[in-house]
Amino acid sequence: MTDYMLWNNEIVERKSENAMVSFEDRGYQFGDGVYEVIRIYDGKLHTLDWHLDRLFYSMEQLAIRAPFSRPKIKQLLKQLIEKNQFTIDGKIYLQVTRGMQPRDHIYLEELDAIFYATVDRFDQPVDMWENGVKVTLQDDIRWLRCDIKSLNLLGNVLARTKAQRNGYHEPLFHRDGIVRECGASNFYMIKDGVIHTHPTNHYILGGITRKKILLFANELGIPVKEREIAVEELKDADECFLSATPLEVVPIIQIDENPVNGNGIGEITKRLQQYYRKRVYDYLE
Amino acid sequence: MTDYMLWNNEIVERKSENAMVSFEDRGYQFGDGVYEVIRIYDGKLHTLDWHLDRLFYSMEQLAIRAPFSRPKIKQLLKQLIEKNQFTIDGKIYLQVTRGMQPRDHIYLEELDAIFYATVDRFDQPVDMWENGVKVTLQDDIRWLRCDIKSLNLLGNVLARTKAQRNGYHEPLFHRDGIVRECGASNFYMIKDGVIHTHPTNHYILGGITRKKILLFANELGIPVKEREIAVEELKDADECFLSATPLEVVPIIQIDENPVNGNGIGEITKRLQQYYRKRVYDYLE
Repeated sequence: MTDYMLWNNEIVERKSENAMVSFEDRGYQFGDGVYEVIRIYDGKLHTLDWHLDRLFYSMEQLAIRAPFSRPKIKQLLKQLIEKNQFTIDGKIYLQVTRGMQPRDHIYLEELDAIFYATVDRFDQPVDMWENGVKVTLQDDIRWLRCDIKSLNLLGNVLARTKAQRNGYHEPLFHRDGIVRECGASNFYMIKDGVIHTHPTNHYILGGITRKKILLFANELGIPVKEREIAVEELKDADECFLSATPLEVVPIIQIDENPVNGNGIGEITKRLQQYYRKRVYDYLE
Repeated sequence: MTDYMLWNNEIVERKSENAMVSFEDRGYQFGDGVYEVIRIYDGKLHTLDWHLDRLFYSMEQLAIRAPFSRPKIKQLLKQLIEKNQFTIDGKIYLQVTRGMQPRDHIYLEELDAIFYATVDRFDQPVDMWENGVKVTLQDDIRWLRCDIKSLNLLGNVLARTKAQRNGYHEPLFHRDGIVRECGASNFYMIKDGVIHTHPTNHYILGGITRKKILLFANELGIPVKEREIAVEELKDADECFLSATPLEVVPIIQIDENPVNGNGIGEITKRLQQYYRKRVYDYLE
């Protein structure tokens, strides 16, 4: 664990007693807040602007007032890394809640948002990259604004805990017969040389890594179709993989009891994985 | 505001600094917790056992360990009322979060739940009882475990705020063409002398007041049908009303632009309202 964290606009020692919130913080009573997880490579922030774009989108959708300007948030995150003398691979978690108010569903307009951020070591998940992971189909019972990266995460908490207790890395959510995304990652199916993935709308989180994968697929000349994939199509998939900020590109080698690509890692997944790895260092600041 | 609150198993002065939680409380990071609102009449707790049944149901569904036994929670709530010398009408808000853990969707089994409760004055909403309220239809975008009284309340927060900013008391949620419930209350339609209301399942909260209304309707000889009501049926409703712990029985006199019962209060609603009022004092402890 690192020694310092951000608590609003201050760097403080990372101890519970330095970052306490009132029982009347709306984050605590309603999950009324948003968050981001930003990857760090060699102590540098990865695709920082893309994450801040999404953070501001999430706040705007919930009418949460930004705690600071974008340049100020950038500056704070960089100070956090510096103060911790953090020069390895890791990730930043940052969270914004709407503010404090006597408990009422109806929020006041002029609340002061509450902000904190921590930085932690996160090593390259080489085992997952090389051996792939298993996922398990689960009903998607989450709310219908999955495009907002909000703190209302009980659906993810329950589904991911159940999946992991049963020996799977992730739940693979489906709703209305359509495959949506995983518990904390986007999902992709490859069929006849084409990457298929869910379009960005209120059913999934518009992943930053997803966005880069679509870009990189284009650079590699691999065609992509953003469309709804029916659950029944999975059995005919040539390859599957998932993507997430901390994990990059991770092959899926099994869905429930059914092997994907003979429990092996497919060629296109491998190409994307390697290309992603190489291009990672072009997005640091 | 009252002077004292419960903070875990202690009575403390009701100040932010006496009831602070760490940024690593799972309630703060995931909305990972449950709550109850219990009505107080003349300083006495109303249908306390029914609320504790539901509290324990919610905790069980989320595999949250109870902070205390049922008798201990009862004792604490009564001490809270006594310490505040609270002898009027009011309500208790109590909340349980799963506990503290370094941030991870996957929860540890053995966490110590965190508990707090406050008591506040709440006068009889005579104006609502006598004049009724307006509601507005909204898409139900909440998650699919509305039977759990959880802290993942962003769907309710957004919908209720929008409704009230537009001059309505409550949103009336519909999903798949079916009327579900309101933003913080259950919904009832009366047609040809019969009360229709949504069956208890994962689409709605099994309201304690709802349960009593069904009981009282039976005592009054008013037939009840628990069934799914299509949105199109609303225009032919004879009467509509809502129920909630703080509000008891409140007539709905308008749905969006459409008057219900000529913007007046129906006979059956009035009978239930009066009977509920009278029977309130049979459920105190």
